[in-house]
Amino acid sequence: MATSEVKVLGTWSCPYVNRAQLALKLKSVDYEFIEDIPLKKSEILLKYNPVHKKIPVLVHGEKPVCESLIIVQYIDDAWPTGPSFFPSDAYERALSRFWADYIDTKWYPLVKVVRQSEDKEERRTLIEKLSEGLVLLEEVYIKCSKGKPYFGGEDIGYLDIILGSTLRWLQVTEIVLEIQLLDQNKTPQLAKWARSFCSGDATKDILPETTKLLELHWKIQDFIKAGYKL
Amino acid sequence: MATSEVKVLGTWSCPYVNRAQLALKLKSVDYEFIEDIPLKKSEILLKYNPVHKKIPVLVHGEKPVCESLIIVQYIDDAWPTGPSFFPSDAYERALSRFWADYIDTKWYPLVKVVRQSEDKEERRTLIEKLSEGLVLLEEVYIKCSKGKPYFGGEDIGYLDIILGSTLRWLQVTEIVLEIQLLDQNKTPQLAKWARSFCSGDATKDILPETTKLLELHWKIQDFIKAGYKL
Repeated sequence: MATSEVKVLGTWSCPYVNRAQLALKLKSVDYEFIEDIPLKKSEILLKYNPVHKKIPVLVHGEKPVCESLIIVQYIDDAWPTGPSFFPSDAYERALSRFWADYIDTKWYPLVKVVRQSEDKEERRTLIEKLSEGLVLLEEVYIKCSKGKPYFGGEDIGYLDIILGSTLRWLQVTEIVLEIQLLDQNKTPQLAKWARSFCSGDATKDILPETTKLLELHWKIQDFIKAGYKL
Repeated sequence: MATSEVKVLGTWSCPYVNRAQLALKLKSVDYEFIEDIPLKKSEILLKYNPVHKKIPVLVHGEKPVCESLIIVQYIDDAWPTGPSFFPSDAYERALSRFWADYIDTKWYPLVKVVRQSEDKEERRTLIEKLSEGLVLLEEVYIKCSKGKPYFGGEDIGYLDIILGSTLRWLQVTEIVLEIQLLDQNKTPQLAKWARSFCSGDATKDILPETTKLLELHWKIQDFIKAGYKL
């Protein structure tokens, strides 16, 4: 497939963008990556995502697809050859969608908030909630993987992509707060999955380096301290 | 199928619950309706939806499915006979999902807020946003329906269910604010679709009566005035 046929608009450090990249890589689809800084609403972004004006956008033959959960589902649908991201059972597919929604609406937003929180008490409450979420996700992993390496079984599936894309920022958060969230005692299976996911052939080139994200984190903190709204 | 095989937990006035009911009706699936008041976190709700503690819940052979968008998709998947709710084209499926997400995260929340707003200026701004959203949805309707009666073409599809379930509360909002939101001039096609959707055989028994919803609206307003948080 010609490079220009498929484009991803986004920035390297955004986990939602990484999801689109991971899904395309797993389907062996070449694409052009168009770096688009989230704060600057570029002309190309406004053209392709006039409703939300947000990255990522996947452009497939001039047709835009927005919202990362929908993009990953679309990539699975549009390139049916290669491994399927969803279980073949209808109920298991519904569970994948439920937990992906949970990650995006309940759990992952806490990772950003806790990292930027200055209030000790608030931070403690948030860490507790984050850890409870991980215990829940450990149970989901055990249920979905059925003893195999991934949520998707033998191969990386939808939930692997959705949760896996957040792992580097989770690691940055652990470093910044000097705590362990993916705990060997509380969530041993999920911790093992995370190590294996991050070091896989398909993922290691796409997931951003933790050190680079850490630098970005401190830059963002400087901007916030200087009074910018990010 | 035995009645007890499929259950819907919810209340008659909730559009998200109505979605599950509409989808089951369209697939000719019998179900038991378990009235569950949203404010009272019942034992059965906590059992089947411990994560969000929210209606609707679809219970299929003791397995719970939560979140209305996921429930409708599940019903389409689990009962593949009968009309499919989604277009056969992958890109059109992605568009359906995108606009369903838009309705739930951007547009429909305004319908509730505007109805309960006491501030004139805020109300005017909200009405403008709501109307802009309807103009956008009119364009989506024209694009998806391709001259046929529904978003889904000849048959009621996913977007019909998602948007159609909100129509009665939209009507209540029009009555309460003494305005017309689904406007004959600005959104003539969508207005026509709405009339046809509400009077269809599959929908008219499930969509709540506007007069009953109006009564409920005034009751809710009384509760809010009395200081209750709803």
